Amino acid sequence: MSMFTVSRDPSKSNTRLALLQLTGTVIPSEDSHSSEYIAACDARREYISGFTGSAGCAVVTLDAAALATDGRYFNQAAKQLEKNWTLLKQGLQDVPTWQEWAASQSSGGRTVAVDPSLLPASTAKKLDDQVRKAGGAALVPLDENLVDIVWSSDRPPRPLHPVMVLSDEAAGKTVVKKIHDLRQYLAKKKSPGFFVSMLDEIAWLFNLRGSDIPFNPVFHSYAAITPDVAILFVDEFKLTEASKVHLQTNKVEIRPYDAFLSDAGRLLKEVKCKTPIADYAAVHGSFLISNKGSWALNRALGGEGFVEETRSPVGDAKAVKNETEMRGMRACHVRDGVALIAFFAWLENQLVAKKVRLDEVQAADKLEELRSKQEHFVGLSFTTISSTGANAAVIHYAPEKGNCAIIDPENVYLCDSGAQYLDGTTDTTRTLHFGKPTEAEKKAYTLVLKGLIGLDTAVFPKGTSGFALDCLARQYLWKHGLDYRHGTGHGVGSFLNVHEGPIGIGTRVQYTEVPLAPGNVLSNEPGYYEDGNFGVRIENVMMVKEIKTESCFGDKPFLGFEHVTMVPYCQNLIDKTLLNAEEKAWLNAYNAEILASTRVYFEDDALTMAWLMRETQSIDC
Amino acid sequence: MSMFTVSRDPSKSNTRLALLQLTGTVIPSEDSHSSEYIAACDARREYISGFTGSAGCAVVTLDAAALATDGRYFNQAAKQLEKNWTLLKQGLQDVPTWQEWAASQSSGGRTVAVDPSLLPASTAKKLDDQVRKAGGAALVPLDENLVDIVWSSDRPPRPLHPVMVLSDEAAGKTVVKKIHDLRQYLAKKKSPGFFVSMLDEIAWLFNLRGSDIPFNPVFHSYAAITPDVAILFVDEFKLTEASKVHLQTNKVEIRPYDAFLSDAGRLLKEVKCKTPIADYAAVHGSFLISNKGSWALNRALGGEGFVEETRSPVGDAKAVKNETEMRGMRACHVRDGVALIAFFAWLENQLVAKKVRLDEVQAADKLEELRSKQEHFVGLSFTTISSTGANAAVIHYAPEKGNCAIIDPENVYLCDSGAQYLDGTTDTTRTLHFGKPTEAEKKAYTLVLKGLIGLDTAVFPKGTSGFALDCLARQYLWKHGLDYRHGTGHGVGSFLNVHEGPIGIGTRVQYTEVPLAPGNVLSNEPGYYEDGNFGVRIENVMMVKEIKTESCFGDKPFLGFEHVTMVPYCQNLIDKTLLNAEEKAWLNAYNAEILASTRVYFEDDALTMAWLMRETQSIDC
Repeated sequence: MSMFTVSRDPSKSNTRLALLQLTGTVIPSEDSHSSEYIAACDARREYISGFTGSAGCAVVTLDAAALATDGRYFNQAAKQLEKNWTLLKQGLQDVPTWQEWAASQSSGGRTVAVDPSLLPASTAKKLDDQVRKAGGAALVPLDENLVDIVWSSDRPPRPLHPVMVLSDEAAGKTVVKKIHDLRQYLAKKKSPGFFVSMLDEIAWLFNLRGSDIPFNPVFHSYAAITPDVAILFVDEFKLTEASKVHLQTNKVEIRPYDAFLSDAGRLLKEVKCKTPIADYAAVHGSFLISNKGSWALNRALGGEGFVEETRSPVGDAKAVKNETEMRGMRACHVRDGVALIAFFAWLENQLVAKKVRLDEVQAADKLEELRSKQEHFVGLSFTTISSTGANAAVIHYAPEKGNCAIIDPENVYLCDSGAQYLDGTTDTTRTLHFGKPTEAEKKAYTLVLKGLIGLDTAVFPKGTSGFALDCLARQYLWKHGLDYRHGTGHGVGSFLNVHEGPIGIGTRVQYTEVPLAPGNVLSNEPGYYEDGNFGVRIENVMMVKEIKTESCFGDKPFLGFEHVTMVPYCQNLIDKTLLNAEEKAWLNAYNAEILASTRVYFEDDALTMAWLMRETQSIDC
Repeated sequence: MSMFTVSRDPSKSNTRLALLQLTGTVIPSEDSHSSEYIAACDARREYISGFTGSAGCAVVTLDAAALATDGRYFNQAAKQLEKNWTLLKQGLQDVPTWQEWAASQSSGGRTVAVDPSLLPASTAKKLDDQVRKAGGAALVPLDENLVDIVWSSDRPPRPLHPVMVLSDEAAGKTVVKKIHDLRQYLAKKKSPGFFVSMLDEIAWLFNLRGSDIPFNPVFHSYAAITPDVAILFVDEFKLTEASKVHLQTNKVEIRPYDAFLSDAGRLLKEVKCKTPIADYAAVHGSFLISNKGSWALNRALGGEGFVEETRSPVGDAKAVKNETEMRGMRACHVRDGVALIAFFAWLENQLVAKKVRLDEVQAADKLEELRSKQEHFVGLSFTTISSTGANAAVIHYAPEKGNCAIIDPENVYLCDSGAQYLDGTTDTTRTLHFGKPTEAEKKAYTLVLKGLIGLDTAVFPKGTSGFALDCLARQYLWKHGLDYRHGTGHGVGSFLNVHEGPIGIGTRVQYTEVPLAPGNVLSNEPGYYEDGNFGVRIENVMMVKEIKTESCFGDKPFLGFEHVTMVPYCQNLIDKTLLNAEEKAWLNAYNAEILASTRVYFEDDALTMAWLMRETQSIDC
């Protein structure tokens, strides 16, 4: 099909693609900041394909279209895509990647194009290689975005929400110190500047927060840090007066959002004027951009010989939380746990005692209401996954108001939710059963719980990556021939994005590159999903910390995890015969922690207190 | 120092290095086949540095010298290197790699050179990048080998041992089929030829065996397989009459060993003559060499644009053992176990009952004598590590005759040994104690055993790599702040090299690239070493096999291991309080297997039978 047979504006034809003599174009999920979550105005891939998941890439040619996404979204994508789309299930055997698919469509010298602002430079380079190897022409960077041309009348405007200051005290580290550390990195790398395009990195670097993207307290912006100058590219009218003063105090120059690429080009020219091009890198070092930096940025800075891609030093620094952030993480997870405990007690009472019919959205709304009463609440950190029975098997299920299921107390109920607080970000999943679970459900729940415990109690030497620990969470499922098609843990921001890099626990080979370090905050969320039947996921947030061990081999510190999530597991779903003595002791100790940190909130709430006491009671070891 | 102050021939000066206006040169451990074990004539790195370990790279400049090696050899290298050498302990924090060290010596436009036949092309490219980034001149491929120039009178001759046929029946797969499969691979990759330089790959491909390298039944050779022709580059007079007939029958052309690079150049020229260079790769595809193929080979084949480096398809095929090879692996490990059991019973009797003084080499010699009586015995698969007390902490300790320790029955005794049989290759480590072990020794032994059990009993979905499983073997040591500085498992050849790629279990990131597959043979060898005190290692050989699980998630088969080693553990060193019920049951079941498969050999040997019965007795669960 043409790219426009799948568009929502069929009046436009595919003339543009043909006019440019192109065979096809790539439409990534991300905006020009490589954001996982994006503003509605940037949802080009959703617009063109109808698929609403948070991850996936579309490739549209004159006569075919494909969408690649990962295991979390196989079911959802299959439902949402029209029949003329090919679904590329990434990770399954013999399924091509979207790059391979794009390459396969370009043989015979055909031309694939892409908006270079939407693709990381490294991804563009690899795609170009693959397309050429398959006999296609070089990948073309297009000045216009082909989706933007057809998406006009019903496109939401670019958000222009105010940008607020997060005080240096609340952030735990001053902007001055953060910029100083980055300049030390520049000096070490002999680089004339680092260009920042990830929105959460900019918010962290300048201690600012916004709300341009749902659930993510960030704002559309870029930044450039040179040895002498710090520039924030943001539309000035979005800044509150306090933000302007804050930036001025910290000697941060403000330039328009749209001036980023041209300013990058200007900076390049200034340096080039001083030095013959051949000597450029030797004299000045390379400009640094993160490996998520766009092809457009790479090109604006002169491309190869002028630019070096690197793991972002800002992202690396951000991933290591400071003492203030760690204190905030602990505190907000207690308050968030209080809301979740009250919610689960309420839900059980409604469903079982009062026999009220509640749908998935009504439950999610009640949870949001309870959360919104907690101190320092800002908003949710992602759409609440509130799912009953078979819906719980749709890994990133989001119920739609008026078009969702009634919660069946005789089936599992999976709730994956979180919030933004001024002192931290939360992300918790619990799977409950209000009736009599099947043996299969109990087995799956308990194997998932064993995996969560296996990872929670891991001790490992400094230098170990999240890749190397992943199997600790899967090993018990594996012994029964079970598994889950998603990562085990993602980095969590501090009053920032609920998913953040570069760390993670899972089978992505990038995770081998970054060892875990004290201060890292990660989720621990094994699961099991039986399509059309039920799903189980249990998720805590944990912080990496140093562990005192009897010995200390090679004088390397040993690390482990501190869990901060304070919500009980579901006693009803635990098959105690599958837990060994150590696991039972872990469960009892954790329940005691949860009770100790949350019971004070329920002294006047007998219903919740009864639920909490029951769910945190000790089991025999 | 100059490179020649460390040479054994001080009469030669460093004039050659200065004459060529070079700053330094790299002297790898490997021969031109990237062999881990090499013939004596190729031991250039040992000659120049005095370090005899199997892994390590030397870099020598006009005024400095460094040797890089890994954790197995830190102690040994420190002992063997003269004081003017810098020991680069690879893997420790802030210690440069040998590439970084070489680069640091080359700033200011200085020139580093290397014999291009001794360095894989990919390693040379990376080194060139690093040297240039550090401000050095481009890496120079030298036509002469600087070590060879000074190493003359006392250099051993190149070995010229006969090359024998391993019948197609014994190999389990015909040469015709092996070459056919490789040609299918060439067709899929649209390649005009694969050039083989790894010696074990050549031996496997042609069902031939030699003895040019101690312990490795291989012979100096290269090979080239094109869609039409199969060429073996070997000096013809080394071939037995049967080998010649065998090669002729299989339509394998024979060319002199030394003609390999020039023939590669000739093949390139022939193809080039037919096609304009610009169209070359599109028309003909690239020549394929393995990622261990030398820079010299890469250059002979035209370099970039003409050559593609790849994981060797021969190595990949060889790593998946066929039914005959698996049967042989099981059978030879029973026979090898019989020799080890008889040896350990004898050793205990000598040391404890008879109070005989035995040194480490005498013990190793007795073991070799017992092994040599086993059916199909060919030779040892590596130098026996026979080590008492603190020597057991030297990971690759090899006792020297007349200069080794007396075995102390009141200390641990570690024996790591293996043999080549016509039907397979063995590799077993056991650590024993003939007296009263300390609590620390028992704890270390039991934690190591728990790790071995954790890996032995792992179940994992198809697609999982050995990297992802490594922590299963380390997790219990880690909880006590302990670890070991070597991999957990290496591939094992089938009557071939005791170490073979590409698979392995460990923290090398290459191991993420190759999923384990049914038929892979691997060691499982966690350990713990306390310098100057004691060492523990326990090693089995295992085969990857499909496991029948209750479920089968995603229709992927689940895999696990079958252990083939048949030698009891040391009951005396096990702290039973550290084992859980499942581990005790595993141990009892394994002991029952060992007893069942080996007792028939000791019906007339009361002493060994008593030892075997005692060491395989069940413990209470």
